[in-house]
Amino acid sequence: MAVYTEVSDKDLRTLATAYDFGEIISCKGISEGIENSNYLLQTSQDSFILTLYERRVNPNDLPFFMSLMDHFAKNGVPCPVPLKGFDGQILRNVCGKPAAITSFLRGNWPRHITEAHCAELGPALARLHKAGINYDKNRENNLSIKEWRALHNSIGDTAENFMPGLKGAIESELDAITSAWPDKNAPLMRGIIHADLFPDNVFFINGKCTGLIDFYFACTDFLAYDIAICLNAWCFDSSGVFNTTKANRFMSGYQSVRRLAGDEKAALPLLARGAAMRFLLTRLYDWINPPLNAYTKPKDPQEFLDKLNFHRGISDIAHYGIY
Amino acid sequence: MAVYTEVSDKDLRTLATAYDFGEIISCKGISEGIENSNYLLQTSQDSFILTLYERRVNPNDLPFFMSLMDHFAKNGVPCPVPLKGFDGQILRNVCGKPAAITSFLRGNWPRHITEAHCAELGPALARLHKAGINYDKNRENNLSIKEWRALHNSIGDTAENFMPGLKGAIESELDAITSAWPDKNAPLMRGIIHADLFPDNVFFINGKCTGLIDFYFACTDFLAYDIAICLNAWCFDSSGVFNTTKANRFMSGYQSVRRLAGDEKAALPLLARGAAMRFLLTRLYDWINPPLNAYTKPKDPQEFLDKLNFHRGISDIAHYGIY
Repeated sequence: MAVYTEVSDKDLRTLATAYDFGEIISCKGISEGIENSNYLLQTSQDSFILTLYERRVNPNDLPFFMSLMDHFAKNGVPCPVPLKGFDGQILRNVCGKPAAITSFLRGNWPRHITEAHCAELGPALARLHKAGINYDKNRENNLSIKEWRALHNSIGDTAENFMPGLKGAIESELDAITSAWPDKNAPLMRGIIHADLFPDNVFFINGKCTGLIDFYFACTDFLAYDIAICLNAWCFDSSGVFNTTKANRFMSGYQSVRRLAGDEKAALPLLARGAAMRFLLTRLYDWINPPLNAYTKPKDPQEFLDKLNFHRGISDIAHYGIY
Repeated sequence: MAVYTEVSDKDLRTLATAYDFGEIISCKGISEGIENSNYLLQTSQDSFILTLYERRVNPNDLPFFMSLMDHFAKNGVPCPVPLKGFDGQILRNVCGKPAAITSFLRGNWPRHITEAHCAELGPALARLHKAGINYDKNRENNLSIKEWRALHNSIGDTAENFMPGLKGAIESELDAITSAWPDKNAPLMRGIIHADLFPDNVFFINGKCTGLIDFYFACTDFLAYDIAICLNAWCFDSSGVFNTTKANRFMSGYQSVRRLAGDEKAALPLLARGAAMRFLLTRLYDWINPPLNAYTKPKDPQEFLDKLNFHRGISDIAHYGIY
């Protein structure tokens, strides 16, 4: 929930001259998106989203993300489509920050996750993975296993302030995950992954998925790792209990579009532990280093510590609802 | 800048069945409005604003505000118009809070105030005052001079934490203002005032005022007190210097619609001191008692201390650009 930058009247006037989208009739900061400032821009023609890239997004990565959204939209993955100005450019400077305008994606993200949402999520993710196969650019995952160790080191002893014994527990778990983690030559399919497909990035109308947003963590990695992220993000109930029915609906939906190979299935418990570790570490980092001027409250790291422990206990993928 | 309450999927579905506005295609929390949670609701028919009333607004006052907006809209003051549901009701319960849906007012509030904005503001305020004359309900100003003393007392010694000597300075200034303040029988025209007409409550498109929002402080008081609030809110430059040209454009615009009586002009320096005192006290109160869970940063009280001191030095209303 955030809007960090106030867009001035002058900036809006400049924007209005740069695009063929009619007259701006309203521009309101919206409380969605944690890393960036987002505005709902209404013009005499249509609704759009104006995004100012504030944190964590490396400006050098923006062309990758923009053409990726374009690629997905053209290949049957409904998502925001970047808008070109009269100058042919997508990216421009607004209030001293890199900015882009995209089409407005209809729908709302679900506040209460049901099995029906998970059933819709599966095919949507599988279509994204299939559409990504013929995308011609790559981006390394800069929040992958290598960086977890660096994050852990930068958190250091302050992890103990969050929970005594946490530093050592992460250390040994990182060792265990690292020694088992598949390398790039493993027989696991790689491709473009969303890498942050939490419920607030998936829109629905009347129970039907209308599209995906927020591709600013997208990168090249194991496709099954994206599935592992979704198992963490969608398939635990709000009480923290893993819901096998949700996982089953999600996995069946996914496999109705793209069948998982045996190696991918077998790797899921490990990948899910890794995914839980990734969000545990970034949440812990944000907890310890809350951004100045942020209107967002850091999310509780405890949630992913519990999820990590759940995945450590999985010996049979039937627990994930996969048969 | 705030959204305090997350509207659930279930609440949205319930809303959608209560109104004749088509299918909800999006509902986004917007970072405008300090006291309430506001959402931009897009349906297959139109855009609307959904407001959940969170703080400071007394639910018993809501029918007054709703019918006031209706009255203004029907009498040539562009503003949000409350929407009735199939049940004929405007107010309903959303997420356990009183809530209403209004029409969407086109335009943006100005981030940088120019003389041209002040010239537009004047007639808009005067038309509001004229339209309020035949409104048949009254609401006492519950942030008027009586309550300033109570606010001051509740702030107490903590005012000294903000600035040593501030408690005594407010005390003696309150005494001075109170002894001179006109009573209800004074020959100053009374009527419905907006009472909070800051720039973020006035929308413009291409320099033309498109309407006014946020009537949740509206009440019955001296019309010239509303002018005094605007002099404080619009006619100082960002450096804190009073801009006589802005005041002149504002006052001329106002008087082109409604001429001020001599008594009203003469009372302006005192009313402007009072208006500065009112915002000094509420900002000081909020500074000392920041709301829990708020995503808003308290505004600096110093600004209105400086403005108060400016108005204390005014002996001739020519300083306000009134001739």
